Amino acid sequence: MSQTPTKRQKVITQIAKEEEFFPGIGRIQYKPDAGASEALVFRHYQAEEEVLGRTMQDWLRFSVCYWHSFRGVGSDPFGTGTIKRHWEDGTDSVENAKRRLRAAFEFFSKLGNKYWTFHDRDLAPEGRTLAETNANLDQVVALAAELQKTHGIKLLWATCNLFVHPRYMHGAATSCDAHVTTYAAAQVKKGLEVAKKLGAENFVFWGGREGYHSLLNTDVRAELDHLAAFYKMVIAYKEKIGYKGQLLIEPKAKEPTRHQYDYDAQTVMAFLHQYNLTKHFKLNIEPNHTTLAGHPYEHDVVFASAYGLLGSIDANTGSPDLGWDTDQFPMDVRSCTMVMKTVIDQGGIAPGGLNFDAKVRRESTELKDLFIAHIAAMDTFARGLKNAANIISEGVMAKALNTRYLSWNSGLGARIAGGEASLEECEKEILERGEPTPASGHQEHFEAMLNHYL
Amino acid sequence: MSQTPTKRQKVITQIAKEEEFFPGIGRIQYKPDAGASEALVFRHYQAEEEVLGRTMQDWLRFSVCYWHSFRGVGSDPFGTGTIKRHWEDGTDSVENAKRRLRAAFEFFSKLGNKYWTFHDRDLAPEGRTLAETNANLDQVVALAAELQKTHGIKLLWATCNLFVHPRYMHGAATSCDAHVTTYAAAQVKKGLEVAKKLGAENFVFWGGREGYHSLLNTDVRAELDHLAAFYKMVIAYKEKIGYKGQLLIEPKAKEPTRHQYDYDAQTVMAFLHQYNLTKHFKLNIEPNHTTLAGHPYEHDVVFASAYGLLGSIDANTGSPDLGWDTDQFPMDVRSCTMVMKTVIDQGGIAPGGLNFDAKVRRESTELKDLFIAHIAAMDTFARGLKNAANIISEGVMAKALNTRYLSWNSGLGARIAGGEASLEECEKEILERGEPTPASGHQEHFEAMLNHYL
Amino acid sequence: MSQTPTKRQKVITQIAKEEEFFPGIGRIQYKPDAGASEALVFRHYQAEEEVLGRTMQDWLRFSVCYWHSFRGVGSDPFGTGTIKRHWEDGTDSVENAKRRLRAAFEFFSKLGNKYWTFHDRDLAPEGRTLAETNANLDQVVALAAELQKTHGIKLLWATCNLFVHPRYMHGAATSCDAHVTTYAAAQVKKGLEVAKKLGAENFVFWGGREGYHSLLNTDVRAELDHLAAFYKMVIAYKEKIGYKGQLLIEPKAKEPTRHQYDYDAQTVMAFLHQYNLTKHFKLNIEPNHTTLAGHPYEHDVVFASAYGLLGSIDANTGSPDLGWDTDQFPMDVRSCTMVMKTVIDQGGIAPGGLNFDAKVRRESTELKDLFIAHIAAMDTFARGLKNAANIISEGVMAKALNTRYLSWNSGLGARIAGGEASLEECEKEILERGEPTPASGHQEHFEAMLNHYL
Amino acid sequence: MSQTPTKRQKVITQIAKEEEFFPGIGRIQYKPDAGASEALVFRHYQAEEEVLGRTMQDWLRFSVCYWHSFRGVGSDPFGTGTIKRHWEDGTDSVENAKRRLRAAFEFFSKLGNKYWTFHDRDLAPEGRTLAETNANLDQVVALAAELQKTHGIKLLWATCNLFVHPRYMHGAATSCDAHVTTYAAAQVKKGLEVAKKLGAENFVFWGGREGYHSLLNTDVRAELDHLAAFYKMVIAYKEKIGYKGQLLIEPKAKEPTRHQYDYDAQTVMAFLHQYNLTKHFKLNIEPNHTTLAGHPYEHDVVFASAYGLLGSIDANTGSPDLGWDTDQFPMDVRSCTMVMKTVIDQGGIAPGGLNFDAKVRRESTELKDLFIAHIAAMDTFARGLKNAANIISEGVMAKALNTRYLSWNSGLGARIAGGEASLEECEKEILERGEPTPASGHQEHFEAMLNHYL
Repeated sequence: MSQTPTKRQKVITQIAKEEEFFPGIGRIQYKPDAGASEALVFRHYQAEEEVLGRTMQDWLRFSVCYWHSFRGVGSDPFGTGTIKRHWEDGTDSVENAKRRLRAAFEFFSKLGNKYWTFHDRDLAPEGRTLAETNANLDQVVALAAELQKTHGIKLLWATCNLFVHPRYMHGAATSCDAHVTTYAAAQVKKGLEVAKKLGAENFVFWGGREGYHSLLNTDVRAELDHLAAFYKMVIAYKEKIGYKGQLLIEPKAKEPTRHQYDYDAQTVMAFLHQYNLTKHFKLNIEPNHTTLAGHPYEHDVVFASAYGLLGSIDANTGSPDLGWDTDQFPMDVRSCTMVMKTVIDQGGIAPGGLNFDAKVRRESTELKDLFIAHIAAMDTFARGLKNAANIISEGVMAKALNTRYLSWNSGLGARIAGGEASLEECEKEILERGEPTPASGHQEHFEAMLNHYL
Repeated sequence: MSQTPTKRQKVITQIAKEEEFFPGIGRIQYKPDAGASEALVFRHYQAEEEVLGRTMQDWLRFSVCYWHSFRGVGSDPFGTGTIKRHWEDGTDSVENAKRRLRAAFEFFSKLGNKYWTFHDRDLAPEGRTLAETNANLDQVVALAAELQKTHGIKLLWATCNLFVHPRYMHGAATSCDAHVTTYAAAQVKKGLEVAKKLGAENFVFWGGREGYHSLLNTDVRAELDHLAAFYKMVIAYKEKIGYKGQLLIEPKAKEPTRHQYDYDAQTVMAFLHQYNLTKHFKLNIEPNHTTLAGHPYEHDVVFASAYGLLGSIDANTGSPDLGWDTDQFPMDVRSCTMVMKTVIDQGGIAPGGLNFDAKVRRESTELKDLFIAHIAAMDTFARGLKNAANIISEGVMAKALNTRYLSWNSGLGARIAGGEASLEECEKEILERGEPTPASGHQEHFEAMLNHYL
Repeated sequence: MSQTPTKRQKVITQIAKEEEFFPGIGRIQYKPDAGASEALVFRHYQAEEEVLGRTMQDWLRFSVCYWHSFRGVGSDPFGTGTIKRHWEDGTDSVENAKRRLRAAFEFFSKLGNKYWTFHDRDLAPEGRTLAETNANLDQVVALAAELQKTHGIKLLWATCNLFVHPRYMHGAATSCDAHVTTYAAAQVKKGLEVAKKLGAENFVFWGGREGYHSLLNTDVRAELDHLAAFYKMVIAYKEKIGYKGQLLIEPKAKEPTRHQYDYDAQTVMAFLHQYNLTKHFKLNIEPNHTTLAGHPYEHDVVFASAYGLLGSIDANTGSPDLGWDTDQFPMDVRSCTMVMKTVIDQGGIAPGGLNFDAKVRRESTELKDLFIAHIAAMDTFARGLKNAANIISEGVMAKALNTRYLSWNSGLGARIAGGEASLEECEKEILERGEPTPASGHQEHFEAMLNHYL
Repeated sequence: MSQTPTKRQKVITQIAKEEEFFPGIGRIQYKPDAGASEALVFRHYQAEEEVLGRTMQDWLRFSVCYWHSFRGVGSDPFGTGTIKRHWEDGTDSVENAKRRLRAAFEFFSKLGNKYWTFHDRDLAPEGRTLAETNANLDQVVALAAELQKTHGIKLLWATCNLFVHPRYMHGAATSCDAHVTTYAAAQVKKGLEVAKKLGAENFVFWGGREGYHSLLNTDVRAELDHLAAFYKMVIAYKEKIGYKGQLLIEPKAKEPTRHQYDYDAQTVMAFLHQYNLTKHFKLNIEPNHTTLAGHPYEHDVVFASAYGLLGSIDANTGSPDLGWDTDQFPMDVRSCTMVMKTVIDQGGIAPGGLNFDAKVRRESTELKDLFIAHIAAMDTFARGLKNAANIISEGVMAKALNTRYLSWNSGLGARIAGGEASLEECEKEILERGEPTPASGHQEHFEAMLNHYL
């Protein structure tokens, strides 16, 4: 399914003859014995290495996100952009957009990831009218289709940016102004068409502006009803055009809104149930969002998976002492091990993947930093994958876990679990059998076992 | 429905002849012009005063909680008890339990609230066996029934304490040990019987130990399946014995567990949907829990109400800078106004109420402090009620809110909301009509309007 | 000291003849009986009203900040600007800067505040060189001097923006690059000159970039040493040019850096002591920063004041459930009462003031919203002032507080406090006198007393 | 300095003949190739192994804390004790206290740590009077002295428990009641005498109740003045009796108080400066407290060390998603590496150490869990030590760090740092030299380098 390394090398060589955006950097090589100062090599990630019967790249399905890595300029609420790329000519022209896209595909090829992701508005400039905007988009999408083919890169997911433009300040699908929601609907229609054209394996909704700042001026029930109505139009159109990608909702607790309706995995599940939408959506979980909701890093990954709804993962991290979305590259081996253990346990993440919704720090201004960040994150996940595979194949931790729940497999435990018991029966049992004997939970032993594998 | 003040005064007088636990404190009077130093008077709460066509006590349905106010001793994780009540003889006897109960009912009568709440284990000592425990409970429940009648006090809700005893350290309904879950089921059976006997208008489940400390040693899906199975036994038995109280689940994000399964209102809604339990439960919302989940104070009240699931409220507060449950008495007029606005908007909170799940600070060691805290909280809610009533009857804020959503009442807005529109139709509209014109959200004006009423 | 209302009205009338930026809005009037829907009136703030022997405007010393209210466009990390002012021509020209400044002074005059604040870079565009930048600044400063005189408006404080420009991405005084620190020093030199010229009563340092993102690439001790060296150059130059304004440091916990060196009031005090700078600086406390540091709203105000270091206040608020700086207008009467109580207790805030470091929400796009926000905040503080004055003049709360500490006024308590006692003496006392009797802290009573005044 | 393994084995064997509290568990052995299921072996910690010229046990100076590990029963605010040790007879007698102490020393010997720590009240029961309490303490201290000698175990630090007893509910040194402060002073006098007798290398103050719950009923300046006066009595008595241990203050942000005066490292430094106490105290940093103050895990360790004040470390961790002190065993290799890097950089932590102020989870009820938790934590720190040693001896990261600051070593940078430059000189430099060229901060590369060593 994936290109062979040889083939990818050829593509890179050929590009280099024409225009090269990252001169001096070739295809990133696997060099397990690299020293501390060597930055542009993989120490752990080897795309074709087999782990539990599949290649690393099949398990990991890494994706580079276009917005952070090719549209990010290092601005923050207290500072203007710090990052300048030499291929940018400072205009918002379609030509500039195309050159930027070619740079991106060179990056993907040299890095060796197989997937990318984008928002519609990342790709091409917004015009004066929707028609003009769509025309701009068509031009860049045509190039993207060509580059995908040339480089053997696929689109993990597409999404519509329904939050940056001032028109969406009160929300898109949940705006108080139906005209705005209508605009969002028109935009998503085009987004689905683009997704189909580029073979996007998924289509994501992140409701950055769907929420409230103040309950004083918000009718939350009306807004959520409108959100559901919006999704029903999306489903109808998706089916009409025969787009087969998986729809995903990405939860986030807050920021930019004070409260985002898709707070966390279980809040989204509540919504899907309330409006009979469960069979149409899965979740795209971003751990940096999970921690902002007050949960442990891997919580939403685990809970979404527990209900068969883990569709894809935005592979990033935050700083637990900060209250906003820092979208840092994931560098913690323990966390990545926990995530990959869940992914292996559910049989893989396809058609989803691990999308690096992460940005180099605004102080990391060199082109090289963009490579280093992705390489280090890929290596961290590769370590996570190998650790998780060891944990699973040795089975020591699973055995310890299962032992704790043995009482549910037979007797009254099994009857309760099976819905066959009654309170009376339970009372009778206790009157006869008496007090339970608590067994240790051995949490520190589980932690020590995990550390053994890290 | 409620006792007249005269009748309550008689009861108090009669008790005083026999044994008096709060000598020197009579029935708390309404004295709107009291000075700053007067503590044992209501300045705002007047039970029979009419607000929007109902009495204050009908809207507010205040309840005193037995555990904090009559079992709390002021201990915390770093200190032993500071609060000693003269009626306590230091034993865990049934006799002591009965005397304490009589003290409590004197307190209720003098304070003038109509409702109380308890956990089963607050009332009577645990015995060596379940049979013995139940027998102890029966003795105290018999007295409670009598005192309820004498004092004209009703039981807002009962609940089972499934978290204090070491047997529940791994959870009750979600324990890894089915024997423990069986014990919990037996305990809840008795709890429902007691609730029926005492006419509890609601029955609450707070799953303090239903959650996880570590995902390493926890099978979350199994535990949640067991929780649902447990609730189904509860529903069956409730129907069997003809208990008519409303079942309520009380969300809390965390503490004592690292993650509690009933994280917040919407997490509980997700659970109820996942297991087809929506028609059997409503929610008991505690704002101190809401803020621990990372939401604004009134968030869960508003969201539960939006979906018709706001069953009752635990009227308390925390300190927003603290990460644990401080169960302080609610003293903020703005917050109480917001809560009461939602209550009025949904037509009242009955059969639920406003339960003071709040404890005097461990440094507030005098009996008088117990009165002061409840009085001040009742006054704060009375101000909230009157403010909310003014907001609603003047209609200025509602008009400003509705104006924001006008576009959804006709045209394409109405068609989208009604599920009749399509993405194509939306695109057509935008291509013709063009860009929306964003209107101000006027948040500061809404805030200023609210302040006008406070 | 302040202009009379009549004089201010004249100025406004005169301006209106020439160019008017806020047509249809006149000088904001005091109308205590205004209804809920009236937004452009003061209900509580009356500049000349006397409170505890001074006018309201003497106690409150309100200041409008130029950056949020005249440079803010409503952008956030997820969206572009939503706020467009009609006087902006879209260029970064000096002419546009001047027109904007005239609009601002019309706003100040109509609103009726006496003070304003700015960063150097808010006023005038940055040029290609420092010389050019300074020349631009000189032009606009000349106009500011003139407008200050015409309108009778004074400069509460000036500050240098050492965080927006990419050159400062690693810090200014604490940059790893001495060239950058040199640049910052040159900028501050000019800033002090401008402050002197415009009669700034204070000069503020907010070290937005002075901190770290990662301890891995940071030498914190070196950076803090450089910060102290920087301040010593500032003090020397201030003395050299005879600038008499008070120097202020504004603490903030984090954002944009992961950790800002001036974390909170006490962290800054530690720094000032460590480098012998205590006599040169006071603190500018912003409660939105205080809450981000994990403290109660008024904590840093109280602690800075306790050590004689409360120099000025940035009057704003955040949402306690959010982990970033929202700079909302202060609308909570209780919080403003607590702040004003401290201000009165220390005898006033001059030469500091209450600077509205607050921005209208990005959805509050109308010019009117800018007035409404300031008016509502001024009214809230006016209520706070009057409440605090009542608390202080009645003396009930102070008496209750002092009662708690009586034992320190005599006997061994006084000896310990006075540094005259020893551990042996204490042991002797306890062996003779025995166990202390704990008295109630009556926290709920204090809360109830406060509510009495709100 | 330390006992040889052979000698320790002899002691254990001898004890086993008399009474053995941990039968079936011998001295914990080093077994680097142990499998995942083996819990009672060290995989990484080998006391006598040399790292950078010292033995592991010299660098790490592990200490077991008596309160959590021998007085903890697994209670929490929502549950009673779960942990029962067979040597406890359920009484609060001196005899029971002595047996418990013998159990503890067996544990220390079998585990192989060299140090222990305690609060005075952990050791012996409180009597009816201070005299009786002191007499109880003397008895147990006599045994402790003997056991220390027999087992070759030393006292890392002692401290006085000034927070559990109800008398301290308003604080000890900062109580509003001088009688309480007097009691605390008497208690600390005895504490210092005990520390001297047992050769405590340090003496710690953790002000659990020194802070406030409400600013309404607190005079913060008076309380802090009293705290300083209290410390001055301590210093005088320490000098009088010739006790040579290092005094340490342990910061904590909050819990049990809403705000603890010793919020974090820099807050304590401010206090020490304000009251001229800097030369008498160092800091005992607990990372679980650091994170509660909103800082990164290693922040306070780094900042205390930067100012020469890092005296000792309470080696534990919390869960970053929780807002209270969980005192978990430290299991994160990355965090421990960062801490040990600082320790090595400052030349070691002696006379301080790494005190496991950590408790087994209340669900970890077996004796074995107590060993497993300590072993796993010691192994984690051993990995941290070895990683840090590699980082330091290779020097790659240090070189990258120093490169960032090169400009401060010469020219104007050196002059600024040396206090020789002026703002005028800086302006001149910039006018001539122009704009600085920002260099990348390479944060991701630093993170990748760190990961290389983990």
